[in-house]
Amino acid sequence: MHYGGDYNPEQWPEEVWLDDVRLMREANVTMVSLGIFAWSRIQRAEGVFDFEWLDRVIDLLHENGISVDLATATASPPPWATAAYPEMLPQDENGATYWPGSRQHFAPSSPVYRRLASELVTALAERYAQHPAVVLWHVNNEYGCHLHYDYSDNARDAFRVWLREKYGTMDALNEAWGTAFWSQLYGSFDEILPPRKAPYSRNPAGMVDFRRFTSDTLLSLYTMERDIIRAAGATQPITTNFMGAFPPADYAKWAAELDVISDDSYPDPNDPESFRNAAFARDLMRSLKPDVPWILMEQSSNAVNWRPSNAPKAPGQMAALSAQAVGRGADGILFFQWRQSRRGSEKFHSAMVPHAGEHTRTRREVVDLGRTLAALPQLPVGRRDARVALLFDWENWWAIQNPDHPVVLDYAVLVQRWYNALHRQHLQVDIVRPADDLSQYSVIVGPQLYLLTDAAAENVAAFVERGGHLLVSAFSDVVDETDAFLEGGFLTRLGDTLGVRVDDFGALVAPSLVVGASSAGEIAAAVGGGGPGQAHATLDSPAGPIVGTYFAEEVRVVDAEVLGSFTDGRTAGSPALTVRSTGAGRGYYLGTIPDDAGMTALTGWVAREAGVEPVLAGLGEFVEAARRGDVLTLINHGGDTVTVDVTGTDLLSGQAVTSVTLGSFDWVMLRTP
Amino acid sequence: MHYGGDYNPEQWPEEVWLDDVRLMREANVTMVSLGIFAWSRIQRAEGVFDFEWLDRVIDLLHENGISVDLATATASPPPWATAAYPEMLPQDENGATYWPGSRQHFAPSSPVYRRLASELVTALAERYAQHPAVVLWHVNNEYGCHLHYDYSDNARDAFRVWLREKYGTMDALNEAWGTAFWSQLYGSFDEILPPRKAPYSRNPAGMVDFRRFTSDTLLSLYTMERDIIRAAGATQPITTNFMGAFPPADYAKWAAELDVISDDSYPDPNDPESFRNAAFARDLMRSLKPDVPWILMEQSSNAVNWRPSNAPKAPGQMAALSAQAVGRGADGILFFQWRQSRRGSEKFHSAMVPHAGEHTRTRREVVDLGRTLAALPQLPVGRRDARVALLFDWENWWAIQNPDHPVVLDYAVLVQRWYNALHRQHLQVDIVRPADDLSQYSVIVGPQLYLLTDAAAENVAAFVERGGHLLVSAFSDVVDETDAFLEGGFLTRLGDTLGVRVDDFGALVAPSLVVGASSAGEIAAAVGGGGPGQAHATLDSPAGPIVGTYFAEEVRVVDAEVLGSFTDGRTAGSPALTVRSTGAGRGYYLGTIPDDAGMTALTGWVAREAGVEPVLAGLGEFVEAARRGDVLTLINHGGDTVTVDVTGTDLLSGQAVTSVTLGSFDWVMLRTP
Amino acid sequence: MHYGGDYNPEQWPEEVWLDDVRLMREANVTMVSLGIFAWSRIQRAEGVFDFEWLDRVIDLLHENGISVDLATATASPPPWATAAYPEMLPQDENGATYWPGSRQHFAPSSPVYRRLASELVTALAERYAQHPAVVLWHVNNEYGCHLHYDYSDNARDAFRVWLREKYGTMDALNEAWGTAFWSQLYGSFDEILPPRKAPYSRNPAGMVDFRRFTSDTLLSLYTMERDIIRAAGATQPITTNFMGAFPPADYAKWAAELDVISDDSYPDPNDPESFRNAAFARDLMRSLKPDVPWILMEQSSNAVNWRPSNAPKAPGQMAALSAQAVGRGADGILFFQWRQSRRGSEKFHSAMVPHAGEHTRTRREVVDLGRTLAALPQLPVGRRDARVALLFDWENWWAIQNPDHPVVLDYAVLVQRWYNALHRQHLQVDIVRPADDLSQYSVIVGPQLYLLTDAAAENVAAFVERGGHLLVSAFSDVVDETDAFLEGGFLTRLGDTLGVRVDDFGALVAPSLVVGASSAGEIAAAVGGGGPGQAHATLDSPAGPIVGTYFAEEVRVVDAEVLGSFTDGRTAGSPALTVRSTGAGRGYYLGTIPDDAGMTALTGWVAREAGVEPVLAGLGEFVEAARRGDVLTLINHGGDTVTVDVTGTDLLSGQAVTSVTLGSFDWVMLRTP
Repeated sequence: MHYGGDYNPEQWPEEVWLDDVRLMREANVTMVSLGIFAWSRIQRAEGVFDFEWLDRVIDLLHENGISVDLATATASPPPWATAAYPEMLPQDENGATYWPGSRQHFAPSSPVYRRLASELVTALAERYAQHPAVVLWHVNNEYGCHLHYDYSDNARDAFRVWLREKYGTMDALNEAWGTAFWSQLYGSFDEILPPRKAPYSRNPAGMVDFRRFTSDTLLSLYTMERDIIRAAGATQPITTNFMGAFPPADYAKWAAELDVISDDSYPDPNDPESFRNAAFARDLMRSLKPDVPWILMEQSSNAVNWRPSNAPKAPGQMAALSAQAVGRGADGILFFQWRQSRRGSEKFHSAMVPHAGEHTRTRREVVDLGRTLAALPQLPVGRRDARVALLFDWENWWAIQNPDHPVVLDYAVLVQRWYNALHRQHLQVDIVRPADDLSQYSVIVGPQLYLLTDAAAENVAAFVERGGHLLVSAFSDVVDETDAFLEGGFLTRLGDTLGVRVDDFGALVAPSLVVGASSAGEIAAAVGGGGPGQAHATLDSPAGPIVGTYFAEEVRVVDAEVLGSFTDGRTAGSPALTVRSTGAGRGYYLGTIPDDAGMTALTGWVAREAGVEPVLAGLGEFVEAARRGDVLTLINHGGDTVTVDVTGTDLLSGQAVTSVTLGSFDWVMLRTP
Repeated sequence: MHYGGDYNPEQWPEEVWLDDVRLMREANVTMVSLGIFAWSRIQRAEGVFDFEWLDRVIDLLHENGISVDLATATASPPPWATAAYPEMLPQDENGATYWPGSRQHFAPSSPVYRRLASELVTALAERYAQHPAVVLWHVNNEYGCHLHYDYSDNARDAFRVWLREKYGTMDALNEAWGTAFWSQLYGSFDEILPPRKAPYSRNPAGMVDFRRFTSDTLLSLYTMERDIIRAAGATQPITTNFMGAFPPADYAKWAAELDVISDDSYPDPNDPESFRNAAFARDLMRSLKPDVPWILMEQSSNAVNWRPSNAPKAPGQMAALSAQAVGRGADGILFFQWRQSRRGSEKFHSAMVPHAGEHTRTRREVVDLGRTLAALPQLPVGRRDARVALLFDWENWWAIQNPDHPVVLDYAVLVQRWYNALHRQHLQVDIVRPADDLSQYSVIVGPQLYLLTDAAAENVAAFVERGGHLLVSAFSDVVDETDAFLEGGFLTRLGDTLGVRVDDFGALVAPSLVVGASSAGEIAAAVGGGGPGQAHATLDSPAGPIVGTYFAEEVRVVDAEVLGSFTDGRTAGSPALTVRSTGAGRGYYLGTIPDDAGMTALTGWVAREAGVEPVLAGLGEFVEAARRGDVLTLINHGGDTVTVDVTGTDLLSGQAVTSVTLGSFDWVMLRTP
Repeated sequence: MHYGGDYNPEQWPEEVWLDDVRLMREANVTMVSLGIFAWSRIQRAEGVFDFEWLDRVIDLLHENGISVDLATATASPPPWATAAYPEMLPQDENGATYWPGSRQHFAPSSPVYRRLASELVTALAERYAQHPAVVLWHVNNEYGCHLHYDYSDNARDAFRVWLREKYGTMDALNEAWGTAFWSQLYGSFDEILPPRKAPYSRNPAGMVDFRRFTSDTLLSLYTMERDIIRAAGATQPITTNFMGAFPPADYAKWAAELDVISDDSYPDPNDPESFRNAAFARDLMRSLKPDVPWILMEQSSNAVNWRPSNAPKAPGQMAALSAQAVGRGADGILFFQWRQSRRGSEKFHSAMVPHAGEHTRTRREVVDLGRTLAALPQLPVGRRDARVALLFDWENWWAIQNPDHPVVLDYAVLVQRWYNALHRQHLQVDIVRPADDLSQYSVIVGPQLYLLTDAAAENVAAFVERGGHLLVSAFSDVVDETDAFLEGGFLTRLGDTLGVRVDDFGALVAPSLVVGASSAGEIAAAVGGGGPGQAHATLDSPAGPIVGTYFAEEVRVVDAEVLGSFTDGRTAGSPALTVRSTGAGRGYYLGTIPDDAGMTALTGWVAREAGVEPVLAGLGEFVEAARRGDVLTLINHGGDTVTVDVTGTDLLSGQAVTSVTLGSFDWVMLRTP
């Protein structure tokens, strides 16, 4: 179990380093991430490296028994680099340059950046590959974080190469992108541009390809560095830190290239439900590489600095969220950062050593957590604990991000809301792609499977054939991987499994346009005058009445049982929820998207129909339960003390228990029978 | 009566074309608009044209009795063109380029674009001028649609030429623009720029001239193409499709250059009042060229794809809106588009042949409407049905768009609201400019006639002299065509007719800053703190108490009767509504802008005073009545069935009726005595 | 006492000039500001000056006994200049150019602009330095008004020079900016850029330096012109017009360079509390140069034109605001502008001669005020009337503008709210910097003294030592002048005086995110989901219960008495308000920011504890009282008539009074015992 944080000794005089290691030892720190933003300190000019200070730091840590997660330091090019090679700077879609002065100001496709980064990583890897303190390599930092997309000429040139490799011929590209529409037939790859500012909506297939290209380009930066490190003889595991469900990088594709998954996580203390967002991210990370425990690479000891209002964490809240990570598969808890900075953009970000000093609550909680984690035994990997899978797919996300759809949707928010419905019911969930191996699951929840490949559709259908219970919501099986409608209408691939087709999506007024008083004027502006129209559609169902939003589809039943019909609005009386049985398998189709209560009611009913049990029965909705092999973690995220009847052995005390009492933010890990 | 839609066969393999003509014949399609976005398919490289596929399409249509509205295809330059000539791309006011990748990415002033477009149109016109299938030419598409203004160097150069032609000398321009203000005296036309991003407010006379220039430049593209088509010997009528009251193009000026007016119309099904917006557009189109029936060139069969929420049309709603167009002067009903696309930005836009197939409601309604329209007899032109005119003028709109006015106004919204007041009372209305022939009208409603030429002022005054009833609202007769105040104060030209002057506009807090909960923060930000102040001013009137907004003017009575005074607020007790009589003529002045109820009450009272009757008495406000010569159209836009007592002969059944019963979205056309 | 306004005769034919002087004399005008935007009229081409018209205007004024405040006319370069030297144009942070077409389109650092401006000022000064009509020089106009920051290459080059002068070595700059953070170590001043668009947050110390550089650069334009005028032999006082608490210019630093302070002031008539904003600006102007009466250089006679809704001033309101200025230290009342323009961006701005003519209310009020001011005797300077000082510091403002703080704050709004609390209680206040001479005050209110220099901290501490009462609110003594935390935590310098330290800022949800229905959606978007969290924290206090916002700090008491504790929320039970006594001195610390009622309660209690009395007791909150030496000004800004018991001699009538009755917007000046 790693414990530690980002360590930036270059910000401090050497006498502070000695204090640092003393404080690290007091806090049971085992590993620090070193040098993430040290490029300009390591390399003061092209070809001129200064490693001596870094040698001293690493040796000092090693002498004190602290391991190093060594960063490649490529996340922020030094001023000399961008002054000499301004062509490496990225640009936005309006052609405005992102200048230096902050961080991560490089075009991922830039040949100059790639050369300079390679030279740095080569020097670092050759120097430290064999250093005994180094136990992990930390490539770059939060790839793509502030700058999701680059539209510079770097990107233009690289996009053309990527397209040429993907499509080979112009005919193939023209067909895939549907360029016969709007007079967009290309004669040459050299005519293609990134989706820069245009008078109106840009080619949607091209948009999805540009997002694929961007993810692949960022990933190629990672593999470039990784290969240099390996070529230098390093044998330690290599990672780069993820950021949860991060839009521009398809982590599900990236995961295969990482030896261990690591994640940065900053749930908002102002949001009493944000622990569910954190739980989603933990489950996603675990699911990305289920055989290797992941690392929580960054969290904050207390407040962050980048929201409009940065609330402190409540007493115990940091430890509770740490326990959540461990309970959901992490074998490392690290922080940004070790010592709070005195200068720079993040000086108000809390740290393991607060600026206000050692006597603070934050410092006490950090020391306590270090002691606690050190006392934990080795935990099982927990490979096959979930019987429910929630489908989450970056390519689908990217396609849904396109405009010109029946109604604006936020894919990530909707997936999170389905997750919350399951989490609230203490159902253990994996987060997987529709084409992944589904054999361990009994229930699959598939929210708006808009972009679906043939292979994914077959995989999901086979899941039902094998006896699984599948719940698919509206706006699914609409397009193939080129964002094109399939011949024959909608639900052409899943339609046989579900027994229905969709004739019309029946868009409702989006909840974002009606929820909240702020939207009155926006609705008028957006929908054009006297509006709005219908925003909800209620349906009856075996799980009770459900309020639908976004869509009230015209569902055409081909071979399915109608479980519920719309009871109001334009589609009153028509099918809303259907099921088709295939042996023990069930294919449920819901022609709308429920509100939160509806998501909970429906998923609970489906899980019960499928015989899937919660991790622990009878828990309140602010008590979290997670299973990791035979270890059960219980966390009280609410304000009231609760007592839970449960049998097991407390991992920390070694005591057998039949019930546990948890105050606010208390948690316990039990080995259970 | 034309029936059909945009046909884009280049998106489909030829075997689908055969299915298309079969389905067109089943739907009684008579004409399709062909090739609108086919430039890149027709011309794959400079100088290389491929017309063979187009020949085959046109011949196939002709063989099946379907006529062609042949597009010139110039709306979207192909990738090869912009790759070779990037200087043709437009720019926004910040200097950011609008790149290709969408559509309509050309600077209207670009010499290269004009050359390339001319070459294409020449080739097309020479090939098809004599083809018997071609019955109409469709120049370009929705000029200016996504890109109202271009600020590139193309525009800069052309604006200088336009100004030189208009003003001749720098002194004339300096005088007209008032450049003595803020040190803007120009020494040469070559110093003038488009109104690009500037530190603060730009010269208002220059802004209005730039809008005139833009409209003229777009129009010159149309006439360039038209002249090429005529020069090639084509004798068919020529049109380009309008977009209702579209801001950057002065359609009232354009109309003279078109043989037939055509319009694109997409009222929002989420807005239960949007049929009135559609009615306004239909009346505007009819009024633009009253002797020639117009064509509804584009509407949707069901949902569109470009709003945040794209509701479907209710059953019957598409036919009801089609009947509205015919009842208000259209002799053609066409759709965007014939067959729903499988790819591209508009694939979610409904079509005459939906992607979900032939069994859909949408397809049934399209076939039904085709059959119905085919059964209609020839309809009268209906040249002189209206006794009320509503003044609408693009130049006034452009001047009101300038900032730095007493209060922010949305001219188009206000005109629409006055129209709605008349429409709600079933008063037949023409939409005309103040300088147009007003001799057929009894009542003129003139909303905020801010920019008024001397000729227009004289014309309106003469209308009253001849016995007409004129209602003028606040913020009128303020500036001349150079956006300059006239010597002597405000209402200097209409003042004699109205018998009043205005000393001060008495701006109120704009309704947009107080209506709707969304604005609380905006008000604080906008008006600066503890505000807001007075937002309404009530007045008494012969039509009852009226709530005024935007202005509570200080009206100085010179020679008029005060019909009503303000009863609250800063101007309590001072004149609000006045009348001056000239023989049978009446000049009413209202020193504010009423809310919707006030507009209805006041226009109803004025109409009654003038002896103007509604099209049909006793109708509810969701039943629409329109007259076209001796044909009366009645449409029920509401949800409840209504029965109307009316005598006439049903145009479709041939039956004499004394009453009609109309369910939701039902309609009827009667020949009346 | 000056009376007059901006005079722009270049907009009018010469016959109007004669009418102007007649009307000026009728209105008791004594001085006009001439030529502010006349550059393009004075200089029609490089090297070609035309002063003859200006000679005639000045002579005409002089003959009529009207003095001239002669402008240097450099605020708006003529078209010929920017056409010849486009490199003088400023750019925004995205690199977009601010083009000509409006006004003030020059990069302050531009060498070309500086040369051209110098040539103009030299010619003007040499011609008019000795003219007897000229009594004041008006350098440029509202420096920085529309364009707070320039990011062009002009700024880049000048910023590097400024930094080189400030820091000398790269090591000094790297240390001050903390460039070890995020790999920002600079190797050369030539690598530094203005804080242009970047991927994420820019170096905060660099941001503050860039704001200092901008203020210094604007000031250097002023001193450049001033020195030219002096070099030409002019002996009149020289000024430039300020704009109240204007963000980008540190007027407290500028004041030393001006002979007399002048200010432009446009309180919003829609805001019933805006007279307090005006009072703050008047007190600030007086405090900037307390020994020299200031001039109200611009106000409006009635409505302005640049807000979304420009309400007229109520009858008497303009005179009341003028009396407020005089009562708070002004010896001149001028307007923008003399005669309302017929053309250009400001034609709707009211003037001393309205476009609607001489019979208007506005004209009558202007004439009345001129007569009244002429009847006033010479007023005392009023150097030492205030016993309360409110700390206001531009450098602190600039530092608080940086992002990445615990919670978003609007410094200027908060200072204004503290001022309003004092104003509402009729406490006479000076507005000073923390390092200024504080010896005349009994009470100092120090709102969020975030950036505090050592010298300022010592000065404030010494104030308490000498027996003063100091009230410091949350988020104070956090950083030094390089925006760096100080070693040892927070409140390291003021901590001894206050007896407390701060361990954590305990950010609450910002009021802007919860107040007002408009924010519901924004909160969700901003704080990330299920939020929001705690937005208020109540505390008890000797002044009663107080609602705190923004912060509920963790205050650690070292040597202070706890006067009040938080009574709810996360910090319930912990210290909220403390005091430490040093002899007669008191240091109060408040670990939050009160709402308006709390500010009033707390400042009132502190003032009473310190024995400070209001200007006059027993007044309602809409009656304003100001003292200027022995002259007491009373103004009724409310709607109701009030009677005030007060003994004195009316300055205008010469009558002794024991009470005065004031209708809405009535005012009186009394010489008091």
